[in-house]
Amino acid sequence: MTFTAHITVMPLKELLDPQGKAVNESLHNLSITAIQDVRIGKHITLSISAESKEHAYQIAESACQKMLYNAVMESYAIVITEA
Amino acid sequence: MTFTAHITVMPLKELLDPQGKAVNESLHNLSITAIQDVRIGKHITLSISAESKEHAYQIAESACQKMLYNAVMESYAIVITEA
Repeated sequence: MTFTAHITVMPLKELLDPQGKAVNESLHNLSITAIQDVRIGKHITLSISAESKEHAYQIAESACQKMLYNAVMESYAIVITEA
Repeated sequence: MTFTAHITVMPLKELLDPQGKAVNESLHNLSITAIQDVRIGKHITLSISAESKEHAYQIAESACQKMLYNAVMESYAIVITEA
């Protein structure tokens, strides 16, 4: 079966996000002043061949640990859906 | 009230995603072969002061239209949650 893993990788809350800060200031310059904070991360979708949802989750987690996120600066969340 | 907008900006399905393709090949080199396709986009969270969820959605959509996404190459999805 084919599953889709939706992975969100975000900078840790404790860390400054300069890209988000720059976008926040630019939005203020565009008169969108109701926004107080912006944080920018990555969204990654994987198409995975696996026997079960649990198996697909393990593959996605392994991909995160080995490549997709940087433990020092980022956290990740995985949601698996059937494709 | 404060709301959080979770915005996912992804490259359009019709377009090649070279970054995703490179990651896919690298995952194969790390012996993670069950993954067939990788697409990489952005995940943006906005903290928004608004009267209602609908109002927060409008502000987030306006931010997307004015700055956060490129209509030629990307699509976006917004989910609003109470902070």
